[in-house]
Amino acid sequence: MKIKPLGDRVLVKVEEVEEKTAGGIFIPQTAQEKTQIATVAAIGDDKDVITVKVGDKIMYDKYAGTSVKVDGSDHLLLRMADILAVVE
Amino acid sequence: MKIKPLGDRVLVKVEEVEEKTAGGIFIPQTAQEKTQIATVAAIGDDKDVITVKVGDKIMYDKYAGTSVKVDGSDHLLLRMADILAVVE
Amino acid sequence: MKIKPLGDRVLVKVEEVEEKTAGGIFIPQTAQEKTQIATVAAIGDDKDVITVKVGDKIMYDKYAGTSVKVDGSDHLLLRMADILAVVE
Amino acid sequence: MKIKPLGDRVLVKVEEVEEKTAGGIFIPQTAQEKTQIATVAAIGDDKDVITVKVGDKIMYDKYAGTSVKVDGSDHLLLRMADILAVVE
Amino acid sequence: MKIKPLGDRVLVKVEEVEEKTAGGIFIPQTAQEKTQIATVAAIGDDKDVITVKVGDKIMYDKYAGTSVKVDGSDHLLLRMADILAVVE
Amino acid sequence: MKIKPLGDRVLVKVEEVEEKTAGGIFIPQTAQEKTQIATVAAIGDDKDVITVKVGDKIMYDKYAGTSVKVDGSDHLLLRMADILAVVE
Amino acid sequence: MKIKPLGDRVLVKVEEVEEKTAGGIFIPQTAQEKTQIATVAAIGDDKDVITVKVGDKIMYDKYAGTSVKVDGSDHLLLRMADILAVVE
Repeated sequence: MKIKPLGDRVLVKVEEVEEKTAGGIFIPQTAQEKTQIATVAAIGDDKDVITVKVGDKIMYDKYAGTSVKVDGSDHLLLRMADILAVVE
Repeated sequence: MKIKPLGDRVLVKVEEVEEKTAGGIFIPQTAQEKTQIATVAAIGDDKDVITVKVGDKIMYDKYAGTSVKVDGSDHLLLRMADILAVVE
Repeated sequence: MKIKPLGDRVLVKVEEVEEKTAGGIFIPQTAQEKTQIATVAAIGDDKDVITVKVGDKIMYDKYAGTSVKVDGSDHLLLRMADILAVVE
Repeated sequence: MKIKPLGDRVLVKVEEVEEKTAGGIFIPQTAQEKTQIATVAAIGDDKDVITVKVGDKIMYDKYAGTSVKVDGSDHLLLRMADILAVVE
Repeated sequence: MKIKPLGDRVLVKVEEVEEKTAGGIFIPQTAQEKTQIATVAAIGDDKDVITVKVGDKIMYDKYAGTSVKVDGSDHLLLRMADILAVVE
Repeated sequence: MKIKPLGDRVLVKVEEVEEKTAGGIFIPQTAQEKTQIATVAAIGDDKDVITVKVGDKIMYDKYAGTSVKVDGSDHLLLRMADILAVVE
Repeated sequence: MKIKPLGDRVLVKVEEVEEKTAGGIFIPQTAQEKTQIATVAAIGDDKDVITVKVGDKIMYDKYAGTSVKVDGSDHLLLRMADILAVVE
């Protein structure tokens, strides 16, 4: 299944986070913290508004977007305005 | 009964999903997941805004639109802005 | 009593639905389903906005409009934007 | 007391309805039904917007306006946009 | 203390109503009815918007404005848009 | 600590009111009445919008602004639109 | 991890406040008071709107922004409009 976002929308793949300390101990995170970072999977056709590109890691507004399953993994359809920052 | 959507509205037919694994086991889905994909059945007359065409499979915003029955099957009258992506 | 809607408003007569199967068995409908189709009885003077005409069967947004009695039958005063589609 | 509405406002006198059948039996109406028809008593100075005139019978949006007593009878100060239709 | 309203604001003095019948019997009024008439005490500097003048008796929207005490009497700081009508 | 408000914002120092009668008896006031007068301490850089100056006594909208402590005394960061009137 | 805010957004580092009197006694503050001051860590690309620069100490609107962890310390992604004042 291929998803082509419309207009100012951006499809992102939510990161599955497995945080470990240097010593390898797992540090649990709240769901909220986990879901704040995602990778851009596809972008809409409104190129004037969209300033991220496929592959960018982004931070997004909590509660934003519509969650969809693509090939079994959690994705979100966000509006560009819900993307807060690019993470490098 | 033929329905002609007005303005930026789009009539879509909600997909009836019967998910099976390769082995044929039925996997139940929540209503929410089911209703996120639909097929465009008719489009309004506001061609500047509408960028989908009859037959397109689309993803739409949860809670959007007005549900109507057409010839016994579930349809939705959506606004173009409620359509998030085209699925291929 | 004659009602002349103002501006972008449209007066519609709510259909009284008596659904029967081919065999004549009455199938009850919820009020919600019943009230979604109506016939245009009069239109306002804002001709740029109004794209329906007297006699058209239309579908309208649930919860929209103000209900009024005209000569004993249920009518609604809708705004043009509450009319979703024309039914043929 | 004379009331001069400002801008796009219209002062209307709420009709006191005494509904009787041909045989003279009183049919009670709910307050809601009663208060939907009124007569224009005075209009504001925004003549571009106001398309009703003193003496017109009008239907108005339920819950709209501010109720005032003028010489002992119930009146409403409505905005033009709250007036749905003229009744003849 | 002298109050100079800013912009489209108007300072009004709320009327203290003592309603009596011809025979002098006091008729209590609800607070709501009482507070609907006031006298303009000062006007803001936005003369394009303000169409009332000091001394005018006005009717105002229930719940509008910010109540202030000026020299011991109840006043309100209203926006021009909250003033519904001039009373003569 | 020096605070420079941004844009259309105004920093005001909330007055501490100690109301006494001529005879010196303290008259308690509600918090609401007390907090309605303040003195302008600093203004933002949007000079087109800001029409008050440092030192002005102003009345402001109840519930408006963000309270901050400056050198131990209560201040508020208001928008110009929350300032209702200048008091002289 | 480097965060590049988008558009009119500003990344700020929330100050950890340890208030002591001259005599060194710790004075507890409510969380609300603490979180009102922060230091600008990165700014977005909308230079017409953003009037703060990296290193500025700013006051921000309570409840504004999205909290993020950067290298273990509390940060906020604010919109420029949520920044009330610069502190010097």
